[in-house]
Amino acid sequence: MPRILLIATGGTIACVPSPDGLAPSLSATQLLSYLSPAPQGEIACLDLFNMDSSNIQPEEWRLMAKAILERGAQYDGIVITHGTDTMAYTASMLTFMLQNLPIPVVLTGAQYPILRPDSDGKANLSGAVAAAQALPGGIYIAFGNAVIRGCRAVKTRTTSLNAFESINAPYIGTIMEGKFINLTNETKAPGAFQYYPDIDPRVALMKLIPGTTPRQLTALADCHMRGVVVEAFGLGGVSNFRRDHAEALQQLMAQGIPVVLTSQCLYEASTPDIYEVSRPLKEAGVISAGDMTTEAAVTKLMWGLGQTKDTERIRAFMRQNLCGEISIP
Amino acid sequence: MPRILLIATGGTIACVPSPDGLAPSLSATQLLSYLSPAPQGEIACLDLFNMDSSNIQPEEWRLMAKAILERGAQYDGIVITHGTDTMAYTASMLTFMLQNLPIPVVLTGAQYPILRPDSDGKANLSGAVAAAQALPGGIYIAFGNAVIRGCRAVKTRTTSLNAFESINAPYIGTIMEGKFINLTNETKAPGAFQYYPDIDPRVALMKLIPGTTPRQLTALADCHMRGVVVEAFGLGGVSNFRRDHAEALQQLMAQGIPVVLTSQCLYEASTPDIYEVSRPLKEAGVISAGDMTTEAAVTKLMWGLGQTKDTERIRAFMRQNLCGEISIP
Repeated sequence: MPRILLIATGGTIACVPSPDGLAPSLSATQLLSYLSPAPQGEIACLDLFNMDSSNIQPEEWRLMAKAILERGAQYDGIVITHGTDTMAYTASMLTFMLQNLPIPVVLTGAQYPILRPDSDGKANLSGAVAAAQALPGGIYIAFGNAVIRGCRAVKTRTTSLNAFESINAPYIGTIMEGKFINLTNETKAPGAFQYYPDIDPRVALMKLIPGTTPRQLTALADCHMRGVVVEAFGLGGVSNFRRDHAEALQQLMAQGIPVVLTSQCLYEASTPDIYEVSRPLKEAGVISAGDMTTEAAVTKLMWGLGQTKDTERIRAFMRQNLCGEISIP
Repeated sequence: MPRILLIATGGTIACVPSPDGLAPSLSATQLLSYLSPAPQGEIACLDLFNMDSSNIQPEEWRLMAKAILERGAQYDGIVITHGTDTMAYTASMLTFMLQNLPIPVVLTGAQYPILRPDSDGKANLSGAVAAAQALPGGIYIAFGNAVIRGCRAVKTRTTSLNAFESINAPYIGTIMEGKFINLTNETKAPGAFQYYPDIDPRVALMKLIPGTTPRQLTALADCHMRGVVVEAFGLGGVSNFRRDHAEALQQLMAQGIPVVLTSQCLYEASTPDIYEVSRPLKEAGVISAGDMTTEAAVTKLMWGLGQTKDTERIRAFMRQNLCGEISIP
């Protein structure tokens, strides 16, 4: 039977009522005690921190990656309980920090605290353990009945139990009656495991609206940002008239700040290749995120800036499929 | 037979190839000439401007609202052809600028230029005319086979023909074989028509990521923004630790800049009422967008700031259901 490590980090699943609202406080051992029947096989417990995931930041990603690195060799799989709010960001970043990981790491959580009798936490935790006992190496999210590649997950629903979707990629598997069912022929990644502890959190996200001023974009340089991801309109449109986004992004690029262009549309790929308005962006060397999620684009850029300051190398990274995060046409 | 006015504003539907990529150039009359059979009834044409909708900004919204006001009385319905990229923003803003409009205004466009034989533009334009001949007063989007209340529409797909979804609200109708089919019992709005020409475009949107710095938020005041919409995590979470978003938003509120909180999850409502991390936001008076789309929240705030500088009145506006844009629990 595979040996599993359960790492608790907080989140709604671990929440108990407090005078100010729900606050995470249950330990990994306490979470496990709610499962009936108890999962088969050996499950060790580690309490890493106990946080609402709205507070999870690049510093916590480093702690999680380090814990996986240091403890992973002793286990066949890891389950991480985590708040839902930033789980997709965490799963994306762990994917880039721990490439070709030999064991599966499955993030899960809940929309309702596990101590509530009707909580989804029990089924989610059982399902994540089953997935971690069956999946090949890599980072995944198991939530509701969906098992999703970590770098393809987005939280799309604030309250429903199936809160996460697999964006522009097939679902890896499903959970049925507590069992993991493989939906793809996911196999072990071919490359050698590599741990990347260095990431640069100085990446800004800008979702454009009609009325966004060029000053809002160029101000990011004053805010000491080292990279910018733009959620543009549709296929990758920005304005090049009156409030000239294209010129502002060119200015950022000229200061050595890589600009990655993605779409504010949830589904399907972006490209700056089709419309005339996007032409100045191409000329300025703006990098297309293709069909990556915003979560993947942002964390991949933070990871890339941790490896190099060279925009051309960043561009090569962003356009390369490192871990299944982007479809290369 | 209802008399319809077709207002052309550009967009992919009107695009022709240029050396730099697709650029909008067909007129309303030219667009109509592609329909076979021609729609029944009288259709007048007006060319307002010819723009890629990534360039449509609050100034163009004023032109569109004014054209609807000045020409609307002579027609039973209006169809506006418009690029898809910002169509949902335009539809939301026209909803707030033209409240209880006596005639239907139906926005449509295409994913492929109408001059392409396989374009969706012909079916979309025919469908929009059929919808404008049948719907009660109000602002709508007709696209693919979906007819959506304007202030509930979001473009969710960059390339598919059904590019728009109705978010947190039922579809108003569907288009089948060129005919409009009512899916709700949409009736004429009960209030008196009111035209609001004044909007304030100085609204910023901030979609948070783990790593967003408080400085990025407070810098919006230096960028002369008068209102801020925050796409927070999940139900409405922001960090209150290390990079303290909550404190930065409190600072903005203290400077008289209303802060509206919505979710970066596409579906379902947000609320700052449940989790401990959101408590400081409630205390600072941050305004919840409930189940409004980001497009509706941003344009409603621009509209509200055009009516008053008083944050308490803005709060009352934002929490009130003006045109079907928000579900009041």
